[in-house]
Amino acid sequence: MSLRDIVQESDTKAGRAFDSVILVLIISSIITVTFETLPDLSPAAKRAFYIFEAVSVVLFTIEYVLRIVTAPKVRSYICSFHGIIDLIAILPFYLSAGFGLLAGIDLRAVRAFRLFRVFRLFKLARFDGAMARFGKAISHAKEEIMIFLFATMILLYLSAVGIYYFEHEAQPEDFGSIIHSLWWALITLTTVGYGDAYPVTVGGKLFTSIILICGLGVVAIPAGIVASALSKVVRNEERRAA
Amino acid sequence: MSLRDIVQESDTKAGRAFDSVILVLIISSIITVTFETLPDLSPAAKRAFYIFEAVSVVLFTIEYVLRIVTAPKVRSYICSFHGIIDLIAILPFYLSAGFGLLAGIDLRAVRAFRLFRVFRLFKLARFDGAMARFGKAISHAKEEIMIFLFATMILLYLSAVGIYYFEHEAQPEDFGSIIHSLWWALITLTTVGYGDAYPVTVGGKLFTSIILICGLGVVAIPAGIVASALSKVVRNEERRAA
Amino acid sequence: MSLRDIVQESDTKAGRAFDSVILVLIISSIITVTFETLPDLSPAAKRAFYIFEAVSVVLFTIEYVLRIVTAPKVRSYICSFHGIIDLIAILPFYLSAGFGLLAGIDLRAVRAFRLFRVFRLFKLARFDGAMARFGKAISHAKEEIMIFLFATMILLYLSAVGIYYFEHEAQPEDFGSIIHSLWWALITLTTVGYGDAYPVTVGGKLFTSIILICGLGVVAIPAGIVASALSKVVRNEERRAA
Amino acid sequence: MSLRDIVQESDTKAGRAFDSVILVLIISSIITVTFETLPDLSPAAKRAFYIFEAVSVVLFTIEYVLRIVTAPKVRSYICSFHGIIDLIAILPFYLSAGFGLLAGIDLRAVRAFRLFRVFRLFKLARFDGAMARFGKAISHAKEEIMIFLFATMILLYLSAVGIYYFEHEAQPEDFGSIIHSLWWALITLTTVGYGDAYPVTVGGKLFTSIILICGLGVVAIPAGIVASALSKVVRNEERRAA
Repeated sequence: MSLRDIVQESDTKAGRAFDSVILVLIISSIITVTFETLPDLSPAAKRAFYIFEAVSVVLFTIEYVLRIVTAPKVRSYICSFHGIIDLIAILPFYLSAGFGLLAGIDLRAVRAFRLFRVFRLFKLARFDGAMARFGKAISHAKEEIMIFLFATMILLYLSAVGIYYFEHEAQPEDFGSIIHSLWWALITLTTVGYGDAYPVTVGGKLFTSIILICGLGVVAIPAGIVASALSKVVRNEERRAA
Repeated sequence: MSLRDIVQESDTKAGRAFDSVILVLIISSIITVTFETLPDLSPAAKRAFYIFEAVSVVLFTIEYVLRIVTAPKVRSYICSFHGIIDLIAILPFYLSAGFGLLAGIDLRAVRAFRLFRVFRLFKLARFDGAMARFGKAISHAKEEIMIFLFATMILLYLSAVGIYYFEHEAQPEDFGSIIHSLWWALITLTTVGYGDAYPVTVGGKLFTSIILICGLGVVAIPAGIVASALSKVVRNEERRAA
Repeated sequence: MSLRDIVQESDTKAGRAFDSVILVLIISSIITVTFETLPDLSPAAKRAFYIFEAVSVVLFTIEYVLRIVTAPKVRSYICSFHGIIDLIAILPFYLSAGFGLLAGIDLRAVRAFRLFRVFRLFKLARFDGAMARFGKAISHAKEEIMIFLFATMILLYLSAVGIYYFEHEAQPEDFGSIIHSLWWALITLTTVGYGDAYPVTVGGKLFTSIILICGLGVVAIPAGIVASALSKVVRNEERRAA
Repeated sequence: MSLRDIVQESDTKAGRAFDSVILVLIISSIITVTFETLPDLSPAAKRAFYIFEAVSVVLFTIEYVLRIVTAPKVRSYICSFHGIIDLIAILPFYLSAGFGLLAGIDLRAVRAFRLFRVFRLFKLARFDGAMARFGKAISHAKEEIMIFLFATMILLYLSAVGIYYFEHEAQPEDFGSIIHSLWWALITLTTVGYGDAYPVTVGGKLFTSIILICGLGVVAIPAGIVASALSKVVRNEERRAA
């Protein structure tokens, strides 16, 4: 069994094992990045997180080198979406460490790019069929989704304008400008309703009533369109299989 | 190439260019109107916004005149929906400036009509097919939508009446009358739930539970109806195309 | 044209006029009842509302007598759903006024029954076809709706039990018992989210996450079922018409 | 009529009566457990609840013994899901009482397991057909549901990461780490919106807007998929019945 079979294939036993190891590494490195942000970490915990990060970056680097070495076409791998994601997952660590040591520059902000590792999860071949199906559904319903996103934008804007005229005198802090009011429009029409901003004038409440009764549909419809497009794609596949 | 081809047509190169310029103008004038409402603007910014507004109104006026001049039937353009929107988009500026200069009357309120420009975005021919489809879907499901809007109204009213009897003694401010309670009913049944008014008595909470379990469906169904009508229209079109 | 044609028919000109007058009366009497609950009404307004109420009750009484007189089968009208609603719409006024005058007993609470007038709106023949369609859709999907209502109940109960164990020590006021917690469960799983009660412990938040991700579907599905059943009934009707 | 017919069958008169008695017992014991958690119960009420609990456990024990005695295959009943649930419904009471009397150990926590009785409600044969249908729908749409749960997880995580970077300086309490931010992401994307945590910075609000417009669909779609899968299963059954 060649190295290529292990790294590139995912239907041999060794290939699956290699993929599993990488998967576990990605997930545990995401968990590490998540827990690292906890405030009041002990110095020991910080050190442990740093060592784990260093080790996983070294392992990701070995994987990256192996993927380059075993790639049928080296350049096309390096320039592919997956290749760039793989590079972005390791580069920030070296940049941050290198500049820190050599020039004393603090590049910790660069390390946020490590989170691009989460996209590596999509590479796992399992979902490929279902992903393609979802892509098809989106492309079927593309025009409808566009209209409703456009209608949603217009509706959000008009809601913000309306509520601004009704409320900006009564509540100059929350409805200080149309831009401030857009936040209220978004939180209301998506029915999130935090309660940080809401109309208090009679006019504002009447306006909100009209906007909500007419507008909820507009915001809710895209999900329905995608769902029905998706079930159509599945139906088509079943028909072909039958 | 005649002027008419540039102004009226949208499938020639010059026509598309003209449309694009107008589109950019409309969008930037909407953005201007939006940012103009920001509080604490510097005098320089206010002046810049005013100049931009004046320039864009002059350009819209030139466009309006060009559209009249090149229209196949002048009167039918002026009286059409698009013609009226085009006029409303420029008239307020002249009225406000003119009356301000001549008679010292402050007509700033009239300027709110500038926002009708947002409707000019719909004129862009791109969405015409999809818009027609959406119109068909609405007309297919008209009767169902009417029933559910009617049922929603009745449900909102009965919810408001019920919660009024349960809560108006405990919370005379938020549930002071059936009209006050309607606001609560709307915000609850649309699941926005700002948290500015909610039942605190045992009876009010029990009543809310029943209303929510029975009522959510009624409010949520119209969106489902529109979505299914829309996907039906699309299916019909595909069948005809096949 | 006989009196019967005017009162009982709705497809003659006089019948339609009679129905319209009654409709206007019902709607204005509902509006009166609504505005009557406003606090701080002037004595003049209260008196005006009372006179309007008295006049409309007299008119409803005349209508009730006319309906009895012209009914093909008097007894079956009096005992029908519509007949009882018509009686309940006028009886409370007479009871309240009579007992008040004769015995000094305050029967204002009885007057709440006036609100049954809102159900008279359903009598208007317009929606009859669509109502039947909706009834059919419900009966088609009866079993599914029952399961999901049952599943919703179980889910609400288990959520309340779970959050009670996690939160009742940290927040003894809002999560004082499973019954208190049911209010939280309802407001959370319907996504209303007033913000009057929410978990603050780590365990409670984790539990809420699991309940929300698994449970939203359960609560949202009945609306989807009704919508799809309704569009099926409409499809069937179209097929028969074709 | 043998004992077996009464206990095991549910289509004889005696069997239905037996089932009904058990159903009433289960529901009233669930209600008891619920009310027992009310704070400030009088000692008399506590005693009454305890006696009712003792009596119902004795009756459940008799039922359990009867089920073992009349089971066609004793071992397979004891080890079945229903058998284990039946045992868990009674064992905690004996353990808690026994250890309390003999060793003075307080095992009240164990009594929480009594709530497993709620699962006994599912045993009622009525819903078996509909349950099977629902199971089929889930298995039809399994892959889609998996993708959307996976996509929901990724979306929740990325939302939490994003809002953490925007808000953790402005609001170190509510957005103290990515783990804290996950709570916000969940409550926002499910549109519950308690209002206990929400963005206040301009960047955070912009980020929330993008996440909400793109993300609502992802969270809302699984319910749509299940609903459409369910209506497909029903269609298939009707076709077979026709």
